[in-house]
Amino acid sequence: MSSGPAVHPSSVPCAGGATVWLTGLPSAGKSTVAAGLADRLRTGRCGVEVLDGDVIRTNLSKGLGYSREDRAVNIRRIGFVSGLLARNGVIVLVASIAPHADVRAQVRGDHEALGVPYVEVHLSTPVEVTSERDVKGLYARHRAGEITGLTGVDDVYEVPERPDVVLPTHEQTVDESVTALLEHLVRRGILAREPDRLTKESA
Amino acid sequence: MSSGPAVHPSSVPCAGGATVWLTGLPSAGKSTVAAGLADRLRTGRCGVEVLDGDVIRTNLSKGLGYSREDRAVNIRRIGFVSGLLARNGVIVLVASIAPHADVRAQVRGDHEALGVPYVEVHLSTPVEVTSERDVKGLYARHRAGEITGLTGVDDVYEVPERPDVVLPTHEQTVDESVTALLEHLVRRGILAREPDRLTKESA
Repeated sequence: MSSGPAVHPSSVPCAGGATVWLTGLPSAGKSTVAAGLADRLRTGRCGVEVLDGDVIRTNLSKGLGYSREDRAVNIRRIGFVSGLLARNGVIVLVASIAPHADVRAQVRGDHEALGVPYVEVHLSTPVEVTSERDVKGLYARHRAGEITGLTGVDDVYEVPERPDVVLPTHEQTVDESVTALLEHLVRRGILAREPDRLTKESA
Repeated sequence: MSSGPAVHPSSVPCAGGATVWLTGLPSAGKSTVAAGLADRLRTGRCGVEVLDGDVIRTNLSKGLGYSREDRAVNIRRIGFVSGLLARNGVIVLVASIAPHADVRAQVRGDHEALGVPYVEVHLSTPVEVTSERDVKGLYARHRAGEITGLTGVDDVYEVPERPDVVLPTHEQTVDESVTALLEHLVRRGILAREPDRLTKESA
C-alpha cells in the first residue's frame, strides 16, 4: 500500500452525503478507522458524523441487550439515523459490529430507497489478531468466563459476501485503511474528484 | 394576524441548523403545523426534517411505553437525533408532546452545549378544543375506558413557562401559525433576513 496515489483531503470536497458502515469483529479497528477518516474528511468541506456503536447504545438503545433480535433493533435504529443525516449531505461513519447479513442488507436497502449512497466496509482482521489486541478486554473477560455471546467467539459473525471495501487492518496501517476508503469514496462520486491530485491508478 | 408582514419562503434561506420543538396536547396541531412549516422551508434552500412523535416511536423507541421514565427516554432520543441533524445545518421540526418540563429543559441544554439554536414552541390549544378535534380518536377511547394515561386528561402536561413561541392554534389558522414561526426564525437569525421583504413590525 505504500505506492498508492496521495489523496489530499482538501482536494476531495463532498459531493453529497453517504453512509459508510464499518463492520467487523470487536477490536478489528472500526472506531479507530472511523476516527481517522473523520479527521481527514473534516479538513475538507464535508459534514461528518461518527456513529460509534458504544455511543449509540447509550443514546438510542439503552435497555437493549445482545440477543439476535435486540442487535437487529439496534442496527436498524443506527441505520435510520444515518439515513436521515446522509440524505442531508452528511457523510456518516458508522462503527458497529452488525454481525447479521440480513440486517445489514435491510439497512442497505433502506438507503437505496432513500437514494442515499451506502458503503459497506468489512474490516477483515481475523479473530486470532483481534483477540490479541483486545482493546476493551472483552476477549479476556470471555476467557475468564465472565461474559458469553462474544461476536466471533461464541456468537455468530456473518462475514460480508460482497462488501464495497475490504480493509485487512492486520496487514495495513490505519492511514493506509483511511486512504483506501478515501479513494473508494472518490471512485463512487461521494467525494468530488480532483484529477490533478490523483494518478490513473486510483481511477 | 391578518395584517402581519409577508414572509416569502424563497426570501428566507437558511443561515444554519436548528431544532424547533412543537410541544402541546394531543390534537393541538403539532404534526400539522410542522408539515406546513416544512413545506414553506423546503421551497427555500433549507435542509428540513420532520421528526414526528409517532414515526419516531416506530423507528427509535419501539418497546417503550408511556410511563414517565419511558417518555423521558423517548424525548431524549429524539433530542439526540435532532441535535445531530441540526448541528449539520438541518432545520429539524419535532412534533412531540414532551409533557415534562425537566426533560424539555434537558434537551434544550443539550442543544446549548452543542451550540445549536433551540426553539421551544408551545401549541397552547386547551383540552376542551383538542378533545373536540380528537384527530386520532384518543379522547374518545379514553372516555370509553379503553385507554388511560392520556396527556392533559389523566396524565400530566406541564405547560411551558417560557416558550420561545406560543401558538394558540384554536385562534389562528395553520398558515398564521406557520407565518409566526417563520418570523421567529428570521428574528433569531436561523433564517437569513431579507429586509426588503419584511416590514419594520417583524424586526
